[in-house]
Amino acid sequence: MIQELTRLPGVGPKTAQRLAFFLLAQPIADVQSLAEALLRARQNTRQCGVCCNLTEEDPCPLCSDSRRDRDAICVVERPADVQAVERTRDFHGRYHVLHGVISPLEGVGPEDIRLAELLRRLGEGTCREVIVATNPSVEGEATAMYIARLVKPLGIRVTRLASGLPAGGDLEYADQVTLSRALQGRREL
Amino acid sequence: MIQELTRLPGVGPKTAQRLAFFLLAQPIADVQSLAEALLRARQNTRQCGVCCNLTEEDPCPLCSDSRRDRDAICVVERPADVQAVERTRDFHGRYHVLHGVISPLEGVGPEDIRLAELLRRLGEGTCREVIVATNPSVEGEATAMYIARLVKPLGIRVTRLASGLPAGGDLEYADQVTLSRALQGRREL
Repeated sequence: MIQELTRLPGVGPKTAQRLAFFLLAQPIADVQSLAEALLRARQNTRQCGVCCNLTEEDPCPLCSDSRRDRDAICVVERPADVQAVERTRDFHGRYHVLHGVISPLEGVGPEDIRLAELLRRLGEGTCREVIVATNPSVEGEATAMYIARLVKPLGIRVTRLASGLPAGGDLEYADQVTLSRALQGRREL
Repeated sequence: MIQELTRLPGVGPKTAQRLAFFLLAQPIADVQSLAEALLRARQNTRQCGVCCNLTEEDPCPLCSDSRRDRDAICVVERPADVQAVERTRDFHGRYHVLHGVISPLEGVGPEDIRLAELLRRLGEGTCREVIVATNPSVEGEATAMYIARLVKPLGIRVTRLASGLPAGGDLEYADQVTLSRALQGRREL
């Protein structure tokens, strides 16, 4: 059990041992209901046939919501990023979840993430702008450039989230790369 | 002594007490040399007559460096921000230190920061772009807008550092305001 628990993110050997002893001290019924809940949630969750987000219904609630604009698709790395962008309440278009980024070092190529599905969607012709919201990491930037090269020839605008100083941040404590990008990406006032 | 030390930033009563007891245990000569060093540094430091940065020589080394471009001025809140921008090695123009931001709540008006000095410099006619690098706080943004209103009628470009996701940041953990600004400030790929 400890070995299995250690595979969870953020759970090291010590935490795993603590969790294990906690579970061993619970009634069998409780452990069974936890085990079933985990399995049921996993069994009922699949990828949306449209946006590849995790969902219990296919298409997912976001894709089947007719009030959402069809002219913009926000491309993110992971399902949690959809929630992050939704929390801003500033984006009213659709999403596409890549389930990863291109990373030659880790052996992840373009065919290993949901790019073919994105291109198929763009082929429908309703999308005017692809907003690439991959993380501002080396792999996220490389994936953004790759997507731009694929999508721009289709006559669709490709934009990237701004990189710069976080809101409420402080110049004095900003790291050099962030401040460089803030400088390079400066905009007219 | 403890009372005086408590006025230093980040020094609470406990740290002040520890510092005080440390100093009281030192030879008089050491304490005297520390006291003199503090006073001498303060006495020899004044504001540069050009950029208002703190300096021992007037004009300061940055202002008297003829290799630096005269066509761009980066406007910052405090002397430490000059160091932060210098560390990026991406800016080769000149600086202007405001020594504060406009903050009606704290009774700081436009006349309390070094804006008149900035306008006088701009009157010389060599500057083509003012990069407003005040912090991305409410007061920093308001000050940036104020400067834009003053400077744009002079026919000088006014830009602002980009606000957005910090380099290496993660969408999932970005606060909503930062992510909103990253979305609004998205740029073409």
